[in-house]
Amino acid sequence: MTLASVLDHIDTNLDAALNRLTDLLKIQSISTDPAHKDDCDAAADWLVADLAGLGFQAEKRPTPGHPMVVAKSDGAGPHVLFYGHYDVQPVDPLELWDRPPFEPRIEQTATGPVIRARGASDDKGQLMTFVEACRAWKAVHGTLPGPITIFFEGEEESGSPSLVPFMEANAPELTADIALICDTGLFADRVPAIVTQLRGLVGEEITITGPDKDLHSGMFGGIAINPARVLTRILADLHDDTGRITLPGFYDGVPPLPDDLRAQWEGLDFDHAAFLGGVGLSVPAGETGKMPVEMIWSEPTCEINGMWSGYTGAGFKTVLPSKASAKVSFRLVGQQDPDRIRAAFHDFVTARLPEDCTVDFAPHGASPASQMSTDHPAFEQARAALSDEWPDAAAFVGCGGSIPIAGYFKTLLGMDSMLIGFAKDDDQIHSPNEKYDVESFHKGIRSWARILDRLNG
Amino acid sequence: MTLASVLDHIDTNLDAALNRLTDLLKIQSISTDPAHKDDCDAAADWLVADLAGLGFQAEKRPTPGHPMVVAKSDGAGPHVLFYGHYDVQPVDPLELWDRPPFEPRIEQTATGPVIRARGASDDKGQLMTFVEACRAWKAVHGTLPGPITIFFEGEEESGSPSLVPFMEANAPELTADIALICDTGLFADRVPAIVTQLRGLVGEEITITGPDKDLHSGMFGGIAINPARVLTRILADLHDDTGRITLPGFYDGVPPLPDDLRAQWEGLDFDHAAFLGGVGLSVPAGETGKMPVEMIWSEPTCEINGMWSGYTGAGFKTVLPSKASAKVSFRLVGQQDPDRIRAAFHDFVTARLPEDCTVDFAPHGASPASQMSTDHPAFEQARAALSDEWPDAAAFVGCGGSIPIAGYFKTLLGMDSMLIGFAKDDDQIHSPNEKYDVESFHKGIRSWARILDRLNG
Repeated sequence: MTLASVLDHIDTNLDAALNRLTDLLKIQSISTDPAHKDDCDAAADWLVADLAGLGFQAEKRPTPGHPMVVAKSDGAGPHVLFYGHYDVQPVDPLELWDRPPFEPRIEQTATGPVIRARGASDDKGQLMTFVEACRAWKAVHGTLPGPITIFFEGEEESGSPSLVPFMEANAPELTADIALICDTGLFADRVPAIVTQLRGLVGEEITITGPDKDLHSGMFGGIAINPARVLTRILADLHDDTGRITLPGFYDGVPPLPDDLRAQWEGLDFDHAAFLGGVGLSVPAGETGKMPVEMIWSEPTCEINGMWSGYTGAGFKTVLPSKASAKVSFRLVGQQDPDRIRAAFHDFVTARLPEDCTVDFAPHGASPASQMSTDHPAFEQARAALSDEWPDAAAFVGCGGSIPIAGYFKTLLGMDSMLIGFAKDDDQIHSPNEKYDVESFHKGIRSWARILDRLNG
Repeated sequence: MTLASVLDHIDTNLDAALNRLTDLLKIQSISTDPAHKDDCDAAADWLVADLAGLGFQAEKRPTPGHPMVVAKSDGAGPHVLFYGHYDVQPVDPLELWDRPPFEPRIEQTATGPVIRARGASDDKGQLMTFVEACRAWKAVHGTLPGPITIFFEGEEESGSPSLVPFMEANAPELTADIALICDTGLFADRVPAIVTQLRGLVGEEITITGPDKDLHSGMFGGIAINPARVLTRILADLHDDTGRITLPGFYDGVPPLPDDLRAQWEGLDFDHAAFLGGVGLSVPAGETGKMPVEMIWSEPTCEINGMWSGYTGAGFKTVLPSKASAKVSFRLVGQQDPDRIRAAFHDFVTARLPEDCTVDFAPHGASPASQMSTDHPAFEQARAALSDEWPDAAAFVGCGGSIPIAGYFKTLLGMDSMLIGFAKDDDQIHSPNEKYDVESFHKGIRSWARILDRLNG
């Protein structure tokens, strides 16, 4: 019944845990703003002190940007690396906050108490769930739960410029049996999830030039090539009538959905009507024949993120534009190769270019998809632990977005990652009035305690 | 030999004619700028006084905007209405002018003397060619050249808001056998032209809305409809692979090019390589099988004048846009009906709209094409007269742009128009350093004298 004692300790000491989180939330660690450099340093110091107090061998480690926090404990059992980030998003527009973003407070809401502050959910509240689980474990067991490396970053909200160099320089130290990443959400209010696949991303900006200046469409319309027309044809050709992407070789490396995952996902009862209804839509727009969750989690996409050409102001100008531009991105899954897809896109555009047009390409990032092998026993152990804690059983799910850290753990350190988090869709991360449910925090701590118990079982 | 006397008089008195034009050019009749309301009035007064001095019954006629000038003469022979406009474009950016725009001066250039000032070519210099021809005629003959109505507008550069109401209210007075419009150019430096067809114009702005807010393309990409993708498909579908416009019924009312006009146009030796080369292009982009001049003069077009969606700033945002917009215009020829084409475009867009998208339309103007019947003997008389004056024979040509006045003369007053002008492509109308070649002015006056002589022959 030691697990029960740990859980009891967590329940009994929740207020103290919330007070600690409150202290951390008061630190204005906005990583993208140079004016908050010292605040980022202070957040790292706070974490080092807290972790050292728990018995971790904890250090603030310098980088060219904001420092990393690395903390280690010894012991038997599987070695886990836990990742979170202590930096937060900027707070503007400040006038849309109901109260100051760095004066955290517990508020009662219709769906229960929340702690409201910038970073409450993303990611200070989440990372502290793990730290508090370790604290309770230590209080009951007298030792930390086995060999753990804690790895906190301070640049996640500003592009993580120091992350890869730091990981490359400290690879042996950071390599563990499995990584735990706490920066995602519940699948639904009562349904915990382990994200086992994340989509990758390739972005590209293209500019097609026809005439060397904007022309009068009366004088030149009909005889001069219009680059906006060329661009719309190219962009329209990227999908066929079934919604499938037509880029040659695009689906190379896209795996079929495994039967067991398909069964799990079908069982999830994803409410696509509610999901789409929240943004004014109703019809899943992906490839014919795919489940709605497949469209977001396991299918690649091609999206126009922006486009512009000619006169875009009020009224009308009969201009025949010189240039037309678009920002296009591809979400990748499975083994799709970002570099090959970028090359295929270049070829696709170039092949459709009339003799009188030229094209300029500007690349914007390239990251492959992350697909975890769930063979490591930790996956089933964590799933069982989460299912014990929450009303509904935990699921292996996908995530449509790209969380590069999971890819780096795989490619640089050879580790699979379990992405487990307790955020809710309405947490307003990156927006005014960010909050974290006290239930997310409380049951999050309990969830980690259960997971650590299973991993050490 | 009376025509020879008139031409001699023109040659001998050219300096006096240039001095009169200089006086008119000094008046800052910028119609779109309320600060220049009195200047517009002064230009009308100047013209009324000059025409009255020539023996016309001349009046300044009020409108809700700037006044019209209407002047009449009696006599035998065909009744012609001559149209021009005394208002001018704004002068900004002023710093790009080499000298003050309302201090006209004769300058020697590599290609001969020019008179440089705002309005020199558009349209004060042009309208004075006709007035000076009447003056020389009067000096030699003692009378004006037959029944003439002169009709000068002061709002052409600001959308002509008073034009149609004034024409409707004064239709009998303004109706003649044929209209002469002096607001176009030579076909080439030595080749005069009579424009016998002008394209019409229908403009429409469309905005397609998908999600009710911009979305994150990671969370929603693949399941949420992207209105930019919908828009590009619609716009791309507007042309087939041969460059033909696919709107159902679009070509209803597009006449085949008559054999005689085709022969004339083939004889023009239009240098499309030079025309396109001047704007960085080389390949005529219109429908397969059409002559380059057909593409501009007698073929309808569909152009994207502007489009925009999503994130268009520097860098990259993986936004899935809520809206996508475009400004689209159609140049019309023959009997194409602007209203039917607008309706067909609406239907075309609506039919391609997925269930989850809505569209908003905003109309921007609708004018039919003007195609003159050249049956009136004045057309051949004027062509012969112009051919006598200029080194090369005159041609009936088209004009890709839209000059609404010709359409109004046809629809409101039942008159065909002969658009005859002497501007050159390098006159920089609407731009800094506008000029009019002294040769255009001089031979323009002589051209009208010859035309009036033929019409009264």
